[in-house]
Amino acid sequence: MSVHPGIQIQGLKYAKAIFDTVRRMSADTLGVTRQGYSELETEVLQYLQGLGRTLDLEITVDKAGNVWMTLPGKDRSLPAFVAGSHADSVPQGGNYDGLAGITAALTVAWWMRHINYQPQRDFTVLMMRCEESSFFGKAYVGSLGMMGRLTNNDLALRHRSLDTTLGHCISSCGLDPYALTTGEPVIDTSRVGAFVELHIEQGPTLTSNKDIRVGVVTGIRGNVRHKNVVCHGQTAHSGAVNKEFRHDAVMATAALLSRMEAHWQEWLDKGEDLVFTVGVIRTAATAAISVIPGEVSFTVDMRSLSADTAERFHQLLLAEAAQLEKDRGVRFDFDKALYTAPGHVNAELSDRLVEAAEKAEIPCMRLPSGAGHDSAVIGAAGIPVAMIFVANQNGSHNPYEEMELPDFMIGCELLWKTVENFD
Amino acid sequence: MSVHPGIQIQGLKYAKAIFDTVRRMSADTLGVTRQGYSELETEVLQYLQGLGRTLDLEITVDKAGNVWMTLPGKDRSLPAFVAGSHADSVPQGGNYDGLAGITAALTVAWWMRHINYQPQRDFTVLMMRCEESSFFGKAYVGSLGMMGRLTNNDLALRHRSLDTTLGHCISSCGLDPYALTTGEPVIDTSRVGAFVELHIEQGPTLTSNKDIRVGVVTGIRGNVRHKNVVCHGQTAHSGAVNKEFRHDAVMATAALLSRMEAHWQEWLDKGEDLVFTVGVIRTAATAAISVIPGEVSFTVDMRSLSADTAERFHQLLLAEAAQLEKDRGVRFDFDKALYTAPGHVNAELSDRLVEAAEKAEIPCMRLPSGAGHDSAVIGAAGIPVAMIFVANQNGSHNPYEEMELPDFMIGCELLWKTVENFD
Repeated sequence: MSVHPGIQIQGLKYAKAIFDTVRRMSADTLGVTRQGYSELETEVLQYLQGLGRTLDLEITVDKAGNVWMTLPGKDRSLPAFVAGSHADSVPQGGNYDGLAGITAALTVAWWMRHINYQPQRDFTVLMMRCEESSFFGKAYVGSLGMMGRLTNNDLALRHRSLDTTLGHCISSCGLDPYALTTGEPVIDTSRVGAFVELHIEQGPTLTSNKDIRVGVVTGIRGNVRHKNVVCHGQTAHSGAVNKEFRHDAVMATAALLSRMEAHWQEWLDKGEDLVFTVGVIRTAATAAISVIPGEVSFTVDMRSLSADTAERFHQLLLAEAAQLEKDRGVRFDFDKALYTAPGHVNAELSDRLVEAAEKAEIPCMRLPSGAGHDSAVIGAAGIPVAMIFVANQNGSHNPYEEMELPDFMIGCELLWKTVENFD
Repeated sequence: MSVHPGIQIQGLKYAKAIFDTVRRMSADTLGVTRQGYSELETEVLQYLQGLGRTLDLEITVDKAGNVWMTLPGKDRSLPAFVAGSHADSVPQGGNYDGLAGITAALTVAWWMRHINYQPQRDFTVLMMRCEESSFFGKAYVGSLGMMGRLTNNDLALRHRSLDTTLGHCISSCGLDPYALTTGEPVIDTSRVGAFVELHIEQGPTLTSNKDIRVGVVTGIRGNVRHKNVVCHGQTAHSGAVNKEFRHDAVMATAALLSRMEAHWQEWLDKGEDLVFTVGVIRTAATAAISVIPGEVSFTVDMRSLSADTAERFHQLLLAEAAQLEKDRGVRFDFDKALYTAPGHVNAELSDRLVEAAEKAEIPCMRLPSGAGHDSAVIGAAGIPVAMIFVANQNGSHNPYEEMELPDFMIGCELLWKTVENFD
């Protein structure tokens, strides 16, 4: 990879000032906390609008409080190229989840002004509110509100620790929350020609790769979940009951997980996209060291870019459980499966990103997104969306997330090259 | 098997009356509750002493409150043949755990009087106190006290629900608890030539067998335990982290258990005596459905008649855990292993039981005891001990334990034939 003398080098100082300032504004004991629809989120957005004003961008705020800052293009009749992400964070989170996408878009706008470049169509920095679900149990609030897709139930959601609701917090930002529940977008979606969200990768794929530090997202994994599976066996004295007479719920569950893990590897080897997680497992409260366990509960989370793959793996799980029931005289009770459809990215727009990377000699891989993003909401409204991932250490949603700025600048270069070559 | 017209048929009514009366005396909502060193246990022992008096047995009470009721033999210089068990039960337990052994010995004494039989040596019914650990957390209190093996710490043990101690409860039965802590037996052990304890089987081996309803115990399984093993992995987003980058504590533990279960079966196939139980397993309090688990804790209980087998399996567990640590980038922290030595039965006395069964055409198998018994304490004091197991449904330590009386009478027949043929 050649290092570019342009935005990749010269933009670093500009981007770093943004990250440093916002981190200072939202620092908590360990990391940062920027609750959606809070005073602090508003203050951070006002600081960023100040940067937009300095760049002479046209600033509007939609009814959901998301901020649009536009650098006018030569042909203003064309729908805009929009880039951005969300301004909020989880409690005790890191500084880059969300803010990186906003900073990348602002840095590209800064670069355009810096080199006196006017794009063919409008280039817009989109700064969204309240993407994280931590405070109210609801994700993508800003983008869903933008699309008119909030519900009265959403607005009634209570804050996890304060005596307030999501609706009240939206109101206290000077917005009408009920305007966001009509089912109709509060923006003119036909005016957005493309949306590209740069985001830190929340997994380790890129950061485990020495040479490739940015990626183009192939889709957002959907999932099939069971919140509570219970394996029922039979309690008995751990010393007095020989193996052949046991109906051990823990051993049956361990066998199920080990079988599914083996299947999972086979499916990966065949080229399927899949992750499989049992995040919580617990024997009953009455369990004891000297009692063969008669009950164990666990969660199941299966994710794939393909709804079909996730559901076929789910069916295999049920079949293996049924087989173990026969073999071991246990019973697996599965609660209702919960489904989240995969989020699709626009193939053509994603190809444009990959082409731009090739042209600019930026090493780049395609990879899935395991976590959800505002991009999925925007894409579901019919707008072509794509995502750029940047290598990030230590995952996200924790104070230790750590994107290296040189990696971030490779992402900015890719975004810039894509905008430059778009028309 | 031939059905014998003797004790097996004629003793049933005698035995049933004992079971029914004691059940009535100690009934609770579901099953029975007879706490060791309680007023109720004393009352039950007094009722049983009344039966002994009716049979003109010589009754003594040792300093631990255990009751010895002797039918004098022809040669009173010979050490006695003693049979019996414990009078107490767990809370909400069944009626047979302990009481079956006392009733069997009493029924044999009744039979001797019924047929005007005088044995060569004394035949003694031994009724022990407080074998169960449920109320004070200490097992075998009556037999340990008999051997002078209680400690001041034992006496200070608090009742699980009442404001009292084990020492105080022993005192309130008119006994001096400190007389039981000298390290010296409070009985003359040289006066006991043999001790045979009939007990319900607490596992399903006999009751799963249509033809063989009684067994001779080959030994009491010892154990190696870990109260708390912690597998440390790495938490991460369940959607964003691909399989190759995971350090999943639950999957690693499931793999460990499945491997050990496979080894366990191989060891059984080779003829080793072994049971392996993970009774408790729990992910950390912060575990969630969408987070790859970074920590899971579990217990391990390995039991065998052979201390060597249990320890070799323990070492295999540590080796497999070490291999998984390498393969998966997790860490298993094992707390200090706790050891209980196997309890040995007297081989010659056990052979005498098996010979008596063969001679009387009683179908009988040899099988291990997974649970501990007073017999182990008595055997440890140098007295030859053996145990007879009787088929029992639904395990023990619960209100649903259910020995069938015809099975019990087979056990009585075996005990009687052994006594009859002893000299």
